[in-house]
Amino acid sequence: MVPHLVTALNGPINELEQHVLDAMPAIERWFRLEWMEHTPPFYCAADLRNAGFKLAPVDIELYPEGWDHLSEDMLPLAVQAAQAAIEKICPEARNLLLVPRNRAHTDNFYLRNLVQLMRIFQNAGLNVRLGSIDPALRTAKKIKLPDGQVVQLDPVIRSKRRLELKHFDPCTIVLNNDLASGIPGILEELNEQYLLPPLHASSVVRRKSNYLRCYDELTKRFGKLLGIDPWLIDRQNMHAKTGDLTQAGALDALAQSCDAVLAKIRRKYKEYRIREKPFVTIQADGSGKEGTVLTLHDAREIAALDRQTRARLSARPMSSIDGEDDGPQDHEEIPSFVVQEGVPNGERIHDNVAEPVVYMMDRYVVGGLYRIHAQQQQPASDKRSGLSAPAGRKDGAHFVPLAFSERPHLPQPGAKPGASVPNRFYMYGVLARLAMVAVSYELEATDPDAETYA
Amino acid sequence: MVPHLVTALNGPINELEQHVLDAMPAIERWFRLEWMEHTPPFYCAADLRNAGFKLAPVDIELYPEGWDHLSEDMLPLAVQAAQAAIEKICPEARNLLLVPRNRAHTDNFYLRNLVQLMRIFQNAGLNVRLGSIDPALRTAKKIKLPDGQVVQLDPVIRSKRRLELKHFDPCTIVLNNDLASGIPGILEELNEQYLLPPLHASSVVRRKSNYLRCYDELTKRFGKLLGIDPWLIDRQNMHAKTGDLTQAGALDALAQSCDAVLAKIRRKYKEYRIREKPFVTIQADGSGKEGTVLTLHDAREIAALDRQTRARLSARPMSSIDGEDDGPQDHEEIPSFVVQEGVPNGERIHDNVAEPVVYMMDRYVVGGLYRIHAQQQQPASDKRSGLSAPAGRKDGAHFVPLAFSERPHLPQPGAKPGASVPNRFYMYGVLARLAMVAVSYELEATDPDAETYA
Repeated sequence: MVPHLVTALNGPINELEQHVLDAMPAIERWFRLEWMEHTPPFYCAADLRNAGFKLAPVDIELYPEGWDHLSEDMLPLAVQAAQAAIEKICPEARNLLLVPRNRAHTDNFYLRNLVQLMRIFQNAGLNVRLGSIDPALRTAKKIKLPDGQVVQLDPVIRSKRRLELKHFDPCTIVLNNDLASGIPGILEELNEQYLLPPLHASSVVRRKSNYLRCYDELTKRFGKLLGIDPWLIDRQNMHAKTGDLTQAGALDALAQSCDAVLAKIRRKYKEYRIREKPFVTIQADGSGKEGTVLTLHDAREIAALDRQTRARLSARPMSSIDGEDDGPQDHEEIPSFVVQEGVPNGERIHDNVAEPVVYMMDRYVVGGLYRIHAQQQQPASDKRSGLSAPAGRKDGAHFVPLAFSERPHLPQPGAKPGASVPNRFYMYGVLARLAMVAVSYELEATDPDAETYA
Repeated sequence: MVPHLVTALNGPINELEQHVLDAMPAIERWFRLEWMEHTPPFYCAADLRNAGFKLAPVDIELYPEGWDHLSEDMLPLAVQAAQAAIEKICPEARNLLLVPRNRAHTDNFYLRNLVQLMRIFQNAGLNVRLGSIDPALRTAKKIKLPDGQVVQLDPVIRSKRRLELKHFDPCTIVLNNDLASGIPGILEELNEQYLLPPLHASSVVRRKSNYLRCYDELTKRFGKLLGIDPWLIDRQNMHAKTGDLTQAGALDALAQSCDAVLAKIRRKYKEYRIREKPFVTIQADGSGKEGTVLTLHDAREIAALDRQTRARLSARPMSSIDGEDDGPQDHEEIPSFVVQEGVPNGERIHDNVAEPVVYMMDRYVVGGLYRIHAQQQQPASDKRSGLSAPAGRKDGAHFVPLAFSERPHLPQPGAKPGASVPNRFYMYGVLARLAMVAVSYELEATDPDAETYA
């Protein structure tokens, strides 16, 4: 199925598409050179938002789920990318342990995702088993999926230095569990095995402000390469170090940051004659995946926040990496907030908000889908839907493979801007990869073991 | 279009398929380790023959044409593979010069192949131009293809150290010209640029006996890995160093080699209860692409060869690399012959012989097609059709993309042997890659510059 998209196809986004297509060789070379110096995350998925007048990544998931929603046509690409990844990480690899999220055995949809991931790694030449770190799973469990496939989950066995299953000693451990409730001790100090992504990629450890700093810097360079205003692919943002919002003065400080970001957006909207109402999102810097996100059009709304919301926003990150208490991300961290320009979502399938998600493995784009929020049928004038709700995957959302699988797949340099689906998706792939480069900078900068290499 | 195949689906080939599937992780790991030590040819295409009772590569083309016949679905794989290749060869690459075969501008079919190759390299992030070494092409020529696309061919400009076009200085030169009529001086000593494949990959320089030695050795190791008789994936062969066949004694010597190979085949046929009539092919070791190939069922046929055929068979290779006259492949080379087991072709589309061809770039399988010899409608009992005819591309042959593009692409471990198209094609991809590894061994062993690295 190919979605019919009702996207604003006029204005700056078409120019952006044209710039991206024209610069294709330069862009690919730029990425090639970046990857000589930096290591891509093992796999990831970037959520993009196409406002019609700008296009920006709004989230990047380092433990991506939903692999089962990708078009079957794209799987050989994922296999090829997985081969490239494994070849670099551990060419001698035989066994790979995939660690699912907890309670995996109760969620058939999620299990299908695991089956697909296992298929990719198996086809890349690995023996793959599922090793659960869920304390509730004490013995091996076989689950029969509706389509007849049988999935086996085994509880992991931790020895002093290794994580294993009975009769299965992996050299590589891939997490499909973002450890949102904290880094478990069972995954620490596995110095003999490759643990991917590394623990400091978990959303409980990551700080949005680190990522944004890296992404901002990259868009400046990338904008120069393309000859475009970096704002077209970035979001205005500010890191508001206010402290706990339940404390005096903190709310004022946060309101000032909101005002500043809103003012910047207003200026840009004026410059590009955009007749939307600017808005910002606010979330705690270390709030992770489950954290509260506020959406505001006016900084004065902040003063009106009730105590409960303030407390919820300020809630400290649940955990950082144990034993790293002396690091910059220690438990004494003062709450701070990221205020980001909100990007209206201009893509619709029927009347539903459709969010493109681009899947990557190693340095390659290997697929994509539209996440469709069926329950959020809001009037088209209010295009920010989905922003304040945590991007839940089970809250009525469904998925449509991105038309990456439509012929022709490859960008068509001659086509009219906005008219060619592959050209739009090439642009999406470029932006998603830019977010991926930013993550690689971020993870290098926050690597707790970095001293040992320096 | 997916061909309907009338392949013998019983017997050893199904067991082979099962062995290959069962060993998938071990096979992929084996290739991974091979590619740590050896360099794959930049691109290549392997012709396979599936006899129903055995499967063997019968030719490997290092300057593959026909890219336009690949399924559009497979192109992203080729792009990804090209990216991987370029990243290793020259990550800073901006400009790539593609050198077509001579007379390219007179052949629209071939030009479409070039357009497709250019598209692949452009999407991998390179500026691509066509640089002709055809002395007949003195000025730039634009050709409009029937589909409206315009292709421009420029004559190359040779400076002391570099090959360029006007205003286009490539760092990488890719040959899509196998230099069958000899290595031109204009391509020699380009020490500042990457020339791919290297000149000693040309069929005028290659010796079949070198390749066969490498392939035989590999099948022994690979057979052990799979737990199979290597004969199931290899061909009996012998290098007959007889000298010129017009000289006394040479014919007898060649007949003895034929007898020996035929006896070996007979033994294998008996072992596997194959009721085919064994046959062999004979060709001069350095006969290149255009050389004569004889097909014989009985060594006594050799004595009956007329003088003309003998002379044609013994014709010396047209050229080796100029300036390498002191090397092992000098002009004084004594004619020798390779006698190889003939493999009957068991695949049919309707009543036509269908030959699978697997395309590879860097270390990856990126597509495939069936080459169909429409004019060779021979009775099914005579399955060796196409053997003695040079595998011409314009002699009425046409092309059908291999059903690599059919869902699901990926091997399905549970399927009944012989029943799953992706499983058969996985096996084809494995055999094609085995031939590719053999080529990489061969090119290492025959590299005229090897001393400088040693």
